[in-house]
Amino acid sequence: MSSGKKVGVILSGCGFLDGAEIHEAVLTLLALDRLGADIQCAAPNKAQADVMNHAAGAPGEGGRNVLEESARIARGVIGDIKDMRGGDLDAVVVPGGYGAAKNLCSFASAGSDCTADPEVERVLREAHAAGKPIGAMCIAPALVARVFGKDLSPQLTIGSDAGTAQALEAMGASHADCAVDDVVVDEKNRIVTTPAYMLAKRISEAAAGIDKLCATVYEMA
Amino acid sequence: MSSGKKVGVILSGCGFLDGAEIHEAVLTLLALDRLGADIQCAAPNKAQADVMNHAAGAPGEGGRNVLEESARIARGVIGDIKDMRGGDLDAVVVPGGYGAAKNLCSFASAGSDCTADPEVERVLREAHAAGKPIGAMCIAPALVARVFGKDLSPQLTIGSDAGTAQALEAMGASHADCAVDDVVVDEKNRIVTTPAYMLAKRISEAAAGIDKLCATVYEMA
Repeated sequence: MSSGKKVGVILSGCGFLDGAEIHEAVLTLLALDRLGADIQCAAPNKAQADVMNHAAGAPGEGGRNVLEESARIARGVIGDIKDMRGGDLDAVVVPGGYGAAKNLCSFASAGSDCTADPEVERVLREAHAAGKPIGAMCIAPALVARVFGKDLSPQLTIGSDAGTAQALEAMGASHADCAVDDVVVDEKNRIVTTPAYMLAKRISEAAAGIDKLCATVYEMA
Repeated sequence: MSSGKKVGVILSGCGFLDGAEIHEAVLTLLALDRLGADIQCAAPNKAQADVMNHAAGAPGEGGRNVLEESARIARGVIGDIKDMRGGDLDAVVVPGGYGAAKNLCSFASAGSDCTADPEVERVLREAHAAGKPIGAMCIAPALVARVFGKDLSPQLTIGSDAGTAQALEAMGASHADCAVDDVVVDEKNRIVTTPAYMLAKRISEAAAGIDKLCATVYEMA
């Protein structure tokens, strides 16, 4: 396995109810760092769709910026996704959390009628066009279904939730059930997905699938 | 090694510049979960000392609550530290980040003249009085020095930063230099410390020391 492959990690805020799922994002960074990756974090520089109080599990106050909140996870080492070129990367990985379905696309509110953030879509399309593998976990496969569903009919997993799986299929993807410690690999389209916290009951379960996703994507890169 | 020991994890917000260092907190949860711990997260229910924009590395806008922000890392499963009893736990671990030195004590602004949050101090004193081991990483040993320095003269590490080490000694602790992947164990006082991001250049380096700290504390519990 070669080292130093450039892997883009697209973040969507900081906190599972309104941003990137923090455990998934950190476990992704850990797995990629252990593989020797050159990690490039990026996020949209725009207002979050909403702000949630994570102690109450209820709407919170004020507005927050997706890039600024994502920078908390990236320890300040992060760029505006506008400056990311998918073709310059060796791979792209998208952690989950509601942020992927609220800030990277509008799946949380619009379901299969959602739209993708144009800059996020551009990076994913550039990466795919250049033959680079894409990894997505938890609810982030909904973003992949939105971007590539009609063109590529990718095979994806969000675990085993029937309603969500149906919405992915309505966008043109095919869904495969998957265990929390496993991945679904669409070899043809070079897309790897894992359920993470769509199924995980504890952080070590999420880590098992995320480690496997990162290793698979890194090997394909 | 027995499983299911109850380990309190004291968080201080969400983001290394004004709260808990996210990687350290998540790596702590991962290590403890893999050890089979019953993890109990808690944080002070009060305003943060400040809010930082982590993309700019500069002061940010608005106010945030330590417990609500910590809940992002704990995925909502967290209590007010007022309700935590140190004697009911088998061990306590405190991740670092500026939050430990801004919200759990005032070390970031007051140095060796700092004061500790009274509820955090109570939990640590209760745990120690009941013979429970305490783990602290990164800058969190400054909190331990503040609480126990005069009574116990504990041996601690914050890595190798001379100025910070001197401030710990001014509070009554003795400082030992320590590599990023190692821990300092004060057997007599049952206190374990590791440098984490005081020295770590990458997340996998932080993970090595944190894994060792959690394993050591869990074994002592």
